Amino acid sequence: MKTVGYAAFSSDAHMQPYHFERRDLRGNDVAIEILYSGICHSDLHTVNGDWGKQHYPLVPGHEIIGRVIDVGPQVTRYQVGDNVGVGCMVDSCQACDQCDHGEEQYCRNGMTPTYGAPDRIDGEITQGGYSKHIVVREEFVLRLPEALDPSRAAPILCAGITTFSPLRTWNVGKGSRVGVIGLGGLGHMAVKLAVAMGAEVTVLSRSARKAEEAEGLGAKGVLVSTDRGAMKAAAASLDLILDTVPVRHDLKPYLPLLDVDGTLVIVGQVGDMDDFASAPMIFGRRRVAGSLIGGIKETQEVLNFCAEHNIHPVCEIIRPDEVNDAYTVMAKGDIAHRYVMDMSSLAVAD
Amino acid sequence: MKTVGYAAFSSDAHMQPYHFERRDLRGNDVAIEILYSGICHSDLHTVNGDWGKQHYPLVPGHEIIGRVIDVGPQVTRYQVGDNVGVGCMVDSCQACDQCDHGEEQYCRNGMTPTYGAPDRIDGEITQGGYSKHIVVREEFVLRLPEALDPSRAAPILCAGITTFSPLRTWNVGKGSRVGVIGLGGLGHMAVKLAVAMGAEVTVLSRSARKAEEAEGLGAKGVLVSTDRGAMKAAAASLDLILDTVPVRHDLKPYLPLLDVDGTLVIVGQVGDMDDFASAPMIFGRRRVAGSLIGGIKETQEVLNFCAEHNIHPVCEIIRPDEVNDAYTVMAKGDIAHRYVMDMSSLAVAD
Repeated sequence: MKTVGYAAFSSDAHMQPYHFERRDLRGNDVAIEILYSGICHSDLHTVNGDWGKQHYPLVPGHEIIGRVIDVGPQVTRYQVGDNVGVGCMVDSCQACDQCDHGEEQYCRNGMTPTYGAPDRIDGEITQGGYSKHIVVREEFVLRLPEALDPSRAAPILCAGITTFSPLRTWNVGKGSRVGVIGLGGLGHMAVKLAVAMGAEVTVLSRSARKAEEAEGLGAKGVLVSTDRGAMKAAAASLDLILDTVPVRHDLKPYLPLLDVDGTLVIVGQVGDMDDFASAPMIFGRRRVAGSLIGGIKETQEVLNFCAEHNIHPVCEIIRPDEVNDAYTVMAKGDIAHRYVMDMSSLAVAD
Repeated sequence: MKTVGYAAFSSDAHMQPYHFERRDLRGNDVAIEILYSGICHSDLHTVNGDWGKQHYPLVPGHEIIGRVIDVGPQVTRYQVGDNVGVGCMVDSCQACDQCDHGEEQYCRNGMTPTYGAPDRIDGEITQGGYSKHIVVREEFVLRLPEALDPSRAAPILCAGITTFSPLRTWNVGKGSRVGVIGLGGLGHMAVKLAVAMGAEVTVLSRSARKAEEAEGLGAKGVLVSTDRGAMKAAAASLDLILDTVPVRHDLKPYLPLLDVDGTLVIVGQVGDMDDFASAPMIFGRRRVAGSLIGGIKETQEVLNFCAEHNIHPVCEIIRPDEVNDAYTVMAKGDIAHRYVMDMSSLAVAD
C-alpha cells in the first residue's frame, strides 16, 4: 500500500515529507488510516540518534489513532470502520512468560517498537505514526472506547500508559501520596490519572509558575524543587514519585521526599543519571525503579479508564507540516500538553 | 559503674584502652557484662570519620553478647544471669508509627545508635560494645536463644539482621534466586540465611578464588563479575541481589542480572555510589533499594531463626588488644568471616 508521512532523513531531526510503501496485509494484520498522531519527546531523542544509531529515512510516532480500512483473513477482533489505536509496540515473540502474562514490553526476545526496528517476519524497518497509514498485527491494535474524543486520545497510547502502568504496579489508590516530577506530556497525564485513582498529587517543579496549571489538572499543589525550606518540610511525605523528566538530571533532591518504603520511578529518561546517593535509600528503605510503557492488556485498560473517568490529554492540534516547529518548542523544555497532528491534510501521491 | 574498653581518641582509628563510666541504672535499664563483641566494617568507617565528625574518645561496637548483671526496678523481661544481645540501636522515640510497628531503625525522630550519638535522656554520647559493660533500656535488649553459641552469635546482631531484614522484606523463600555481592561479614551471613530460607544463592565476586568458600556456605556457586561472558549468560537470572560491598562501587554490571521486577538492595555502603544507568531499570522494571539493619522484633526473629537452623557466623575470636591488627586486615578488603573479641581478658581498674 502506498502511503505518505514525515520522516527524518538524518540525525539533524528535520522532518520532511516521505512517500513509502506499507506491507501487504498478512493474515492477522489490520490496515489503519491514521487520523491523529501524537508527538512524543522520545521521537525527538530517537531521530536525533540520542539513543543509538538509526536507519534513515525514519518515520517516528507511536501515539496513533485511526480507523480500520482493511483486515487480513484471520483477523477476528476488528472490522473495517472500527476506531482503533496503536502504541509503542507492534510485535513481540508471543511465546515467552512475559508475553503470556500480557507484559510484551518486557518480552524475553525483545518487543518490536512501532518505528525504527526490524519487523520480525520480513526484517523491514518499522515506520511509525507520522504517516497516513499503518499496518499492524491485530494483537497490537487497541480499541478506542466511544467516550474518547479521537482527536485527543492519541497521547494515551504512550504518555498515558507510561504513567498508568507504574501507578498500577505500585498500587496507587485512595489516599496514596503521589509526586510527579515534570509537567510535560507524561507528567500532566500522570497527574490526571493519579487524581482519578484517588491519590493526593503534588507536582514537583523548578518554579511556582506551573501551580495554576497543576491545580487545574487536579493536583493539590506544586512543590518548588529549588526551595530548600519547602523541600525539607516535605521530607517523607510521598509514597510514590513518578519522574517524567526527559533529560539527564539529579535524583538526590527528590529521594528524601519519599516516606519509608517509598519508590521513585523513572519513566522519562533512558540513559545515565547523575550520581547516586545511597544514604537516603538506606535510611528509609527507599527505592528507585524504572518502568517501560505497559503491556497491551494494560494499554487497553488505560484507554477504558480514561473513557470511564473522562480523561483526555491536553492536546494542541497541529498539521503534519508544523512538526518541525513543534520539535523546536519541545526541545526547549517541558510543555504541559501534547502536540497531536491531524493527519487529514496528508494526501498520498498518485 | 566503672568500666573499661577500647576507644578511638581521634580519626586515626587507632584503638587504645579507655577507662570510663556507664550510667547508673534507670528504672527500665539492664546492666550487661559483655562477653563477646563483634567487629563490623562500619566501626572502622565511623571511627575514621568517613560518615561524619565524631565525638572522641569513641568506643565502637554494636554486635554485643553478654550476661545480665543487674536490672532496674521496672524491668520485666530480663533477670540477672540471662544471656542477652545488643545490636545497632539502644533507643528510639517509642511513640511514632515506625516504632509502633517494630521498625525502630526508621524511627521518625531518629533512633539512637549504640555508639557515637547523644542519649535521649541525659545527652551523654553513647559508647559501644568494645567494653566490659553496657547499660541499655530493656526494649533494646535481645534474648540469646540457648541453641546459639555465645562466642559466635555476636555478628548476628548486625551482619545477621542487616541481611535477614531485606531477605524478609523482599519475600525470599523456596526457589528464590538470590545474588550476594561481596563475601565479607554481611555477605557470608546473607548466603547462610538465604540458603536456610530455601533460596538458590549465587555469590558475585571479582574472582573465582572464593568459589570453595561460597559453596561451603551453601551457595550454588560463584559468578565472577569480571568475566563478561559469564555475566552476560547470567542476565535476568536473579530475583534479588544483596549488595554488601562496604566501599564505593559501580552498580552498572549487576543490574542486568536481575530478572523483570527484580531488586538490588544496598546494605553495605552508606554514601555516594558510582554513576547510575536508568536503561536497565526501565527495560525490566528493575529496582534499586536501600535497607538499614532491622527492627528489634526482627532482630529477635533472626536470632531465633539462626538457633532453629543452626546458623552461626564464621568467627575468628581475638583478644581486645588485637583490635588494631583486625582493623588492618579488614581495611584491606572483604574477609569471609567476622572478628569477635572475647572480652574476658579486659579488667576494670580499681
